[in-house]
Amino acid sequence: MKKYAVIVAAGSGQRMNSKIPKQFIQIKGKPVLWYTIQAFLYAFPDIEIILVLPEEYQANAFKLLHIPFNPRIHVTNGGATRFHSVQNGLRLIQEHGVVFIHDGVRCLVSNELINRCYNQALKSGSAIPAVTANDSIRIQDGNTSRSINRNNVKIIQTPQTFLTEILLPAFEQDYDTSFTDEASVVEAAGKKVHLVEGEYSNIKITQPVDLLIIEKMFEEMELEA
Amino acid sequence: MKKYAVIVAAGSGQRMNSKIPKQFIQIKGKPVLWYTIQAFLYAFPDIEIILVLPEEYQANAFKLLHIPFNPRIHVTNGGATRFHSVQNGLRLIQEHGVVFIHDGVRCLVSNELINRCYNQALKSGSAIPAVTANDSIRIQDGNTSRSINRNNVKIIQTPQTFLTEILLPAFEQDYDTSFTDEASVVEAAGKKVHLVEGEYSNIKITQPVDLLIIEKMFEEMELEA
Repeated sequence: MKKYAVIVAAGSGQRMNSKIPKQFIQIKGKPVLWYTIQAFLYAFPDIEIILVLPEEYQANAFKLLHIPFNPRIHVTNGGATRFHSVQNGLRLIQEHGVVFIHDGVRCLVSNELINRCYNQALKSGSAIPAVTANDSIRIQDGNTSRSINRNNVKIIQTPQTFLTEILLPAFEQDYDTSFTDEASVVEAAGKKVHLVEGEYSNIKITQPVDLLIIEKMFEEMELEA
Repeated sequence: MKKYAVIVAAGSGQRMNSKIPKQFIQIKGKPVLWYTIQAFLYAFPDIEIILVLPEEYQANAFKLLHIPFNPRIHVTNGGATRFHSVQNGLRLIQEHGVVFIHDGVRCLVSNELINRCYNQALKSGSAIPAVTANDSIRIQDGNTSRSINRNNVKIIQTPQTFLTEILLPAFEQDYDTSFTDEASVVEAAGKKVHLVEGEYSNIKITQPVDLLIIEKMFEEMELEA
């Protein structure tokens, strides 16, 4: 089965107060995106990587990423929204297979999670990693709110993983503001999505302090290795 | 108006892989709980602090906390659940007033948030700090799940703040497993609760890596001060 990982890294990093987009910030001498790419290359020797980058980073992408040229890594342009960025990435897919859509800034994704998503997508067409909320959660409805059993509240992660025959037709829809992730796009196309167990450590870098967490986690992994 | 802060710090810290409960772990030479207590003492010169601690930490509480004896700080026993711990704390309240129920391990609570909760509780009887979810969220229902607008998903924090006449009768109910926080107890007693804007920085220490975040945040505060 053909495998593709569309790694979405088209953000400009405004929330990081940094001139460098967060996916290019270095941790222990390598950019965040380097770790993310390695995770997928390591998972499957035959995977094709489709990197969605801001336009100004494309010419020098391999150099910026500290990666020697690799014909399995393809680079394309980001779009106006997440939906459009993923749509651009999917245009490079030619064959039937399994597609991972992954946040470039989730560089701690494990080999186990990638394989769990792959197996579940093969079985049921989709695999959306999710973890259960640790905090009390309420749903707001106008001026009132109601408590909800937090065990039923799932925090959604990536790689959101799909068979091409489910994902590609869904991305031919017109854009809608309700498309916050790929699962919501696939559902809007009338398909069901299937959750799999995510990982609390599979965090998304959004604030400067997250880099510190990642560094600490890498240090702990080295100690365990 | 009389003010009470019930600071719940009865946990044993099992998730931290540490022999020291997380509320006693030191950051920059002071235990986590020291910072939490200071935040409330600083907010109101006339506040009474009710500390709910594991029984074995009570005899030496002031010494362990690096706090000189203070007649405004009262210490009591933790119970079998959060509900029972809070219930023990509330038994020390003698007068009509405003009560803050706060997680001992949320040591970054700001003076602004404490005052926002106070003013809202005076006005409407309760104030539950909440922030909007940053991730895609789904609600699981058996084998299926549905996407939900994350702008309506509120992650609940503390200090959950109430007028005594609302809070004290609610805690006379029998315990129910649906009581995950004080808001849920008050609602079960038939009262409405009111949300106020929380703070993303008002994090709860649950994992070792959170200590690192807190340390980093203190450093940034010192740079700004």
